[in-house]
Amino acid sequence: MHVTFEEAQQAVEAAIKKAEEVGTQMCIAVVDSGANLKAFARMNDAWVGSIDIAIKKAKTACFFGMPTGQIGKLSQPAGPLFGIEHSNEGLITFPGGLPIVNTEGILIGAIGVSGSSVENDHLVAKAGVEIVGLSDLPEHPWRT
Amino acid sequence: MHVTFEEAQQAVEAAIKKAEEVGTQMCIAVVDSGANLKAFARMNDAWVGSIDIAIKKAKTACFFGMPTGQIGKLSQPAGPLFGIEHSNEGLITFPGGLPIVNTEGILIGAIGVSGSSVENDHLVAKAGVEIVGLSDLPEHPWRT
Amino acid sequence: MHVTFEEAQQAVEAAIKKAEEVGTQMCIAVVDSGANLKAFARMNDAWVGSIDIAIKKAKTACFFGMPTGQIGKLSQPAGPLFGIEHSNEGLITFPGGLPIVNTEGILIGAIGVSGSSVENDHLVAKAGVEIVGLSDLPEHPWRT
Amino acid sequence: MHVTFEEAQQAVEAAIKKAEEVGTQMCIAVVDSGANLKAFARMNDAWVGSIDIAIKKAKTACFFGMPTGQIGKLSQPAGPLFGIEHSNEGLITFPGGLPIVNTEGILIGAIGVSGSSVENDHLVAKAGVEIVGLSDLPEHPWRT
Repeated sequence: MHVTFEEAQQAVEAAIKKAEEVGTQMCIAVVDSGANLKAFARMNDAWVGSIDIAIKKAKTACFFGMPTGQIGKLSQPAGPLFGIEHSNEGLITFPGGLPIVNTEGILIGAIGVSGSSVENDHLVAKAGVEIVGLSDLPEHPWRT
Repeated sequence: MHVTFEEAQQAVEAAIKKAEEVGTQMCIAVVDSGANLKAFARMNDAWVGSIDIAIKKAKTACFFGMPTGQIGKLSQPAGPLFGIEHSNEGLITFPGGLPIVNTEGILIGAIGVSGSSVENDHLVAKAGVEIVGLSDLPEHPWRT
Repeated sequence: MHVTFEEAQQAVEAAIKKAEEVGTQMCIAVVDSGANLKAFARMNDAWVGSIDIAIKKAKTACFFGMPTGQIGKLSQPAGPLFGIEHSNEGLITFPGGLPIVNTEGILIGAIGVSGSSVENDHLVAKAGVEIVGLSDLPEHPWRT
Repeated sequence: MHVTFEEAQQAVEAAIKKAEEVGTQMCIAVVDSGANLKAFARMNDAWVGSIDIAIKKAKTACFFGMPTGQIGKLSQPAGPLFGIEHSNEGLITFPGGLPIVNTEGILIGAIGVSGSSVENDHLVAKAGVEIVGLSDLPEHPWRT
């Protein structure tokens, strides 16, 4: 099951609104449950380098069904997932990527935000998710 | 000089409207004059394989300041540019990509559309460009 | 808005002059505001491995509108941007890359230098920037 | 044996001079005999898509010690080298790339030019080579 285009658009719009409130310039990407790009927006003056980071955050959150920052805690030197960023043509494992989960607990996509501090990136991603669903996944089953 | 986010959004919206009129499901990408992604939308039921094609069409049109289909005429077997698609991490040289030129004749970005016949792709790309500018470049100078 | 070829050449020449003063052999790359290569020079006896590093430093500085070394401080293990180097087909986040900003405060490109200690790389990059502009960006807006 | 930086610069300058005479905007790349970039210049208004093509033409001419257009004759459909462009991370096999050979018949590098018709690209590449050497290689030995 996949996020619809209308939901993806709403998520991007809500994220942009939050970014404007916070006074930041963001790149925002939404992928479906296949980790394939659904919608993308780069605000004026957002870093060009954030395009790829936003998309990779969305993919990373979808790939593993969890917030990107949670993976980053495990991928530190001496951590169990050290170097996981080398997989999947490049992961981004710091905060700013969140799964999008519908009310039935099904993973329908993910959002990735880049352009400011990781705290702001996370905040804006959260605003994008909340307009269309949740970001917490049940144990199983969560993908259909 | 780069297309603004507002212009990119308008181009995507106009392209979606035209795609709906034509009864097709499209992926639509807008890049700035540096060929970096500015906005992207995948309509419901559009081919997943069209994501990359739409983005590559937009980049190709920006890279050479001309419609993608024009390059494709020159890149056929025995043509002068045979094999040009191997450059720039992959070009798409059939119709559906158009430069975006402002009223001063400056290349400010490009649009790429994929999801239907190349005729429809071109039609939808054209609708996207026309809302924000032209797609014909003067001889020179055209990039600043 | 993009750095001109004349400015890019001047930046490379000033960087080479400084490299000779310091007694080092450098690779020097200049990109425009789209992070696309504008000029490149490899001095005799400069490391072949520095070609890609110089280009990636220039791109990294352009991508984020800041000196590469500033990003490197945030991308250390346990830092907020740990692993950011995996984005954008490879970033270089140690010193030697600087934005090029014009007198109106607009990011017009960036320079990247590699071939000696990071202190020397930075020094040579700085000499390249100063001949054509500044390397400090105002808060916003800074990209057009 | 490798082209020196001074020779590479001279080749680029001679190529630019010729490009200006012809009234075109070119990207010009010079690689050494290891196919590693030595000098690069993008003239104002040259296609951004020509950056990679110029570099790939120079590499292709160096990789095989022959003009790129000669390989292109063999890589057509049904030709003996059909599809060779897929090797070496992408070759460009239409005219515009030429070996640089010194007076002793040693391959010291190559030049690649892109930005206009393949005839003009070839003409400008030839002007670049001739200032520093020849582009014809003896049978063997030609690489040291």
